[in-house]
Amino acid sequence: MVPGSPSARGDAAADAAATDPIHLGWMQGTPPPPERMIAFADGSFMRFPRTRWSFSHWRELVPTIEVARGNGPVTVLARSERSEIDALEFTPLGGSARMSWQESLAANYTDAIVVLHRSRIVYERYFGAGGPEQPHIAFSVTKSFAGLLATALMLEGALEPAQRIAHYVPELGGSGFADATLAQVLDMTTALAYDEQYEVQTSRFHDFARATGMEPRAGEAGARSGCEYLAGLAGAGEHGNAFVYRSVNTDVLAWVMARVTGLPFHVLLRERIWSRLGMEADAYLQVDSAGTPLAYGTLNARARDLARFGQMILEEGACQGRQIVPAAAIREIRRGGDRTLFAGAGYATLAGWSYHNQWWIAHDAHGAFMARGIHGQALYLDPTAQMVIARFASHPRAPNVQLDPTSLPAYRSLAAHLAA
Amino acid sequence: MVPGSPSARGDAAADAAATDPIHLGWMQGTPPPPERMIAFADGSFMRFPRTRWSFSHWRELVPTIEVARGNGPVTVLARSERSEIDALEFTPLGGSARMSWQESLAANYTDAIVVLHRSRIVYERYFGAGGPEQPHIAFSVTKSFAGLLATALMLEGALEPAQRIAHYVPELGGSGFADATLAQVLDMTTALAYDEQYEVQTSRFHDFARATGMEPRAGEAGARSGCEYLAGLAGAGEHGNAFVYRSVNTDVLAWVMARVTGLPFHVLLRERIWSRLGMEADAYLQVDSAGTPLAYGTLNARARDLARFGQMILEEGACQGRQIVPAAAIREIRRGGDRTLFAGAGYATLAGWSYHNQWWIAHDAHGAFMARGIHGQALYLDPTAQMVIARFASHPRAPNVQLDPTSLPAYRSLAAHLAA
Repeated sequence: MVPGSPSARGDAAADAAATDPIHLGWMQGTPPPPERMIAFADGSFMRFPRTRWSFSHWRELVPTIEVARGNGPVTVLARSERSEIDALEFTPLGGSARMSWQESLAANYTDAIVVLHRSRIVYERYFGAGGPEQPHIAFSVTKSFAGLLATALMLEGALEPAQRIAHYVPELGGSGFADATLAQVLDMTTALAYDEQYEVQTSRFHDFARATGMEPRAGEAGARSGCEYLAGLAGAGEHGNAFVYRSVNTDVLAWVMARVTGLPFHVLLRERIWSRLGMEADAYLQVDSAGTPLAYGTLNARARDLARFGQMILEEGACQGRQIVPAAAIREIRRGGDRTLFAGAGYATLAGWSYHNQWWIAHDAHGAFMARGIHGQALYLDPTAQMVIARFASHPRAPNVQLDPTSLPAYRSLAAHLAA
Repeated sequence: MVPGSPSARGDAAADAAATDPIHLGWMQGTPPPPERMIAFADGSFMRFPRTRWSFSHWRELVPTIEVARGNGPVTVLARSERSEIDALEFTPLGGSARMSWQESLAANYTDAIVVLHRSRIVYERYFGAGGPEQPHIAFSVTKSFAGLLATALMLEGALEPAQRIAHYVPELGGSGFADATLAQVLDMTTALAYDEQYEVQTSRFHDFARATGMEPRAGEAGARSGCEYLAGLAGAGEHGNAFVYRSVNTDVLAWVMARVTGLPFHVLLRERIWSRLGMEADAYLQVDSAGTPLAYGTLNARARDLARFGQMILEEGACQGRQIVPAAAIREIRRGGDRTLFAGAGYATLAGWSYHNQWWIAHDAHGAFMARGIHGQALYLDPTAQMVIARFASHPRAPNVQLDPTSLPAYRSLAAHLAA
């Protein structure tokens, strides 16, 4: 039994094969039969195993805004398939029985996975509702795009890490963010009257999700937009003393960037990243009722395009010889954050890691670092092995500590194999 | 004073320049100021002059589904700009003062217009929120795509014009559609307890719009999806005796096609049309709460791509030498419908026209025919002049009889000019 697997929790979540959304026929037929319907309004779109369909069909559920790829040529990803990867074995964290790479994909309810080695595709698989041309929600992987943009803006002098948030966004002057620094927002060391527990319905996270339209609102209560929610969010203690992962920080960051540049998040993302990497397809973001794109977790894209983004990061900001973001921005991110503060958050699977500028830094021998999103979204970068892993998943559990035991050692094992 | 212009109605709708949505700053800023907000939930997105923004930003307001262009090359539209067109003059219907082509664009609150002559772009302009890469809602122009698909399926024998609707969709067996024939649905001669008056809030049309998510639902009353609404819609009299324009027919048609082919409307549209014309961009359709794409009026596309579609129709179904739909389908559409029944509907601006298979047929000397959508959406095809006009607009009035006086004679005048 694998730690973190549904069976380890003692619940009855069926496995990946039994919950294949195509096999189950979700949303098939005109109209779909009632027992195969998935809707936003009743919240069913976020209930496993319906999520195995929803995560690949986000725009069919909510309003969205395009992040255009532009009109340039597609960056061709050369291909050197490594068929031995499926049989590669590793030992899951906290376990003893060996598991194969292929088994790990099912254990994590993988929808799409693309592995680049030395910029070539060595492995690419799709399951469930996933497919090479099917965009998938990246959840908080989105945050790392925002963090990269902010890091670049700091290097340009447009943003100051030590500056207070209320300086940039006066509307936040009455909120708990007012006296937090930009650096504290970026590293999630703000102190706020807000907790983020995805699987606890009374968690404040769900108030934020309802305000932003990520979950249906119940009646007229509560904030009606992300900005309204953020402006009304109280502080709780002194900033800078603890790393606490809170999605609200990212939308404050996007608000700051929009105010300073005059460009909303989707435009910044398009102009500075998405239109400059030879992406295959337009991406998109969900917008809230005020039309504000949600930076904390609503980028939807193809796995190969996420891998293209990862490859640019791995190459210190360059794509096919052209500098897209400054190399110094990638170096700043990789420097990492405060490891002692991070340790205090108690992520069992991430001992020795840190969080910096909206990225997760392993501080391991390979210099690995990640973008991570709930339910198994991952962009894993290993500079030593010159490896990029872009993975989309629809795991029944939200917290990635549930997936790390069968993911991180698989990634490390593959890196060692490719680097050998 | 131009017939059909806002001033002719005696109301205070401001003109195109005064309602330029970019100048007015709708939805600009993070967040937009309250007086510049446009939202779906409060219905403000459909109130002029906010519509001048909404019609170019539909996906930011509602759930949508992609109609992919595929991976093939873009069909290049050669360009031979005709600068004299702006000064071309015509006499508006029912008027006496001459008007220039350029003036007619403002009179109709044009957002985008592309004119092809002999397959080359001779004129292309964008105003307001329009732009070459900005998709715009086509409203009922969408119906003509559905009608073309159905015409092709009839030629293939997959659909029978004389067959009863309940034969194809048993769920409609208790509705007013049950004993209507497919041909009656296509030509909108069904008799139903349903009226379609866009500007009358008590019109049944708005019940259908609420059921399908084109307008916000008020509380829990009413059908929750297009299919549910259609299945509960009663008949009113005998089918076949009158032409009455009713959008519900088109979604019944899409339902029939989905049932017979096993493919929902967006897939049929993609596989048979959108992916085969070298479109520049993906299009999209709104979906209702059951995930069903709305065939009656939610295609969003670039004006140039609508023109590419028009050119294929003009070439009797061929695109760059490749037959996309059978020429016989175009000939069947151009044959037109019952002109006596059409005359009974009393369209003042469309004397002598007919409606057939979801297209509007002029029966004029040039053999002109059209796809038409509320607020000024138009695809005007003149086979004699070898002219295609694709126009998007955001006119304050919904009914196209308000725009025809300054549109149809402009089109005819341009056709005569180009054919000379």
